[in-house]
Amino acid sequence: MRNIKLTIEYDGTNYSGWQCQKSKVQSKKSKVKTIQETIEKALQRILGEKIKVIGSGRTDAGVHAFGQVANFKTTSGIKLDKLLVGLNGLLPEDIKVTCVGEIYIDFHSRFDAKEKLYRYTVLNRKSASPFFSRTSYFYPHKLNLRRMQKEARFLLGKHNFTSFCASNGRGRNPVKTIKKLTVRREGETICFDIAADGFLYNMVRNIVGTLLDAGRGRLEEGTLKRILLAKDRRLAGTTAAAKGLCLMKVKY
Amino acid sequence: MRNIKLTIEYDGTNYSGWQCQKSKVQSKKSKVKTIQETIEKALQRILGEKIKVIGSGRTDAGVHAFGQVANFKTTSGIKLDKLLVGLNGLLPEDIKVTCVGEIYIDFHSRFDAKEKLYRYTVLNRKSASPFFSRTSYFYPHKLNLRRMQKEARFLLGKHNFTSFCASNGRGRNPVKTIKKLTVRREGETICFDIAADGFLYNMVRNIVGTLLDAGRGRLEEGTLKRILLAKDRRLAGTTAAAKGLCLMKVKY
Repeated sequence: MRNIKLTIEYDGTNYSGWQCQKSKVQSKKSKVKTIQETIEKALQRILGEKIKVIGSGRTDAGVHAFGQVANFKTTSGIKLDKLLVGLNGLLPEDIKVTCVGEIYIDFHSRFDAKEKLYRYTVLNRKSASPFFSRTSYFYPHKLNLRRMQKEARFLLGKHNFTSFCASNGRGRNPVKTIKKLTVRREGETICFDIAADGFLYNMVRNIVGTLLDAGRGRLEEGTLKRILLAKDRRLAGTTAAAKGLCLMKVKY
Repeated sequence: MRNIKLTIEYDGTNYSGWQCQKSKVQSKKSKVKTIQETIEKALQRILGEKIKVIGSGRTDAGVHAFGQVANFKTTSGIKLDKLLVGLNGLLPEDIKVTCVGEIYIDFHSRFDAKEKLYRYTVLNRKSASPFFSRTSYFYPHKLNLRRMQKEARFLLGKHNFTSFCASNGRGRNPVKTIKKLTVRREGETICFDIAADGFLYNMVRNIVGTLLDAGRGRLEEGTLKRILLAKDRRLAGTTAAAKGLCLMKVKY
């Protein structure tokens, strides 16, 4: 038995996410297309056996990845470069595997993940853009960058992030450590880079949405700290749109 | 009468170019969708009068623009910021106007153009990319960057570019001045930036295609100079795919 590790890039626009929530799969299975299933089908065609692909974590409908990591086990003796070319030949244009490697048999892409880096991209100018319409959130309002950077600092480190967790994401340990949280302007876009040892459901999008509220001048100074300490989801701002979010890297 | 100048960004994937070749318009008018027509229709809806939009030049089917310039005349007294918002509201996601301004009545976006800058983007890695599949040319072969830079230097300056002109683009003055021609690697992409006082039909794509042949080691050193001096289209290399080409800027 071999354990194969994949690094995957995808434009999530046309998918219901990496994997479906169980309830969704049961209620309207036929309509749902996921990244995981698409990759499994391609692998099964190449390897001629049933394949179960394990991702480093779910990404929501519409969320993208530049460095999603997954692994699967196989009895096939196929050469890795042949597998890479074969897979990309079968995969649609919006999903591509950028790296294939063999890894020790116990490696588990979800359980072994030590840190993930997400990037949220906001297009901050007067008009939308044909080139970034799928991969950024168009936000034409004036934003105070320094204000967002200042508020973001309160979230760094180990905290209970209940306030930034979607209501249907409860039950898991809400204590996470944010190792990096930067906000910077690059031309007409604003990039939020967030690295942590783990993320609650919708955590990045809730943090970004609240930071945008702050940057627009809708929140008093120090509000993010107050929201964080309150551990109450109702206090956080809007959830930023899925299309701006991208899983950049998973560290092991 | 007012003369209005537009700066336009578009993803050309789903269009037959900025404007059709006359023969195409006549033979199958109903099937052809162009950038120019799409903008004219939106303007006519807003302004309530027939509008003729003049572009700085045609871009081919599948070619993109980040800074196409166009102008049109109108008797309307509409405010410019209202026009910008109204236009982008009516235009599809793949065409957006980034700037609207009023300009002197004699300004002509094609005749007055002094210089144009095109960028050609090549994705040079083993696997295609979901994010750049529409806006770059996927070229997985190993490329010698210094070799391409060296060959490119022969084309700088004022020359007769007949060798790099498509056969159906004859008749115009083939003497053009290339003011800038750089080849550089940015991560997994290779960017060709070409600025000139004017371009012949398919000139950028023919130059890039020939440089890629050189970079791949298919041509002897000095071949580009030889091709240029021969003034014979049959000697140049392949025409690089339209999807990698983008009109970046027009100078007046």
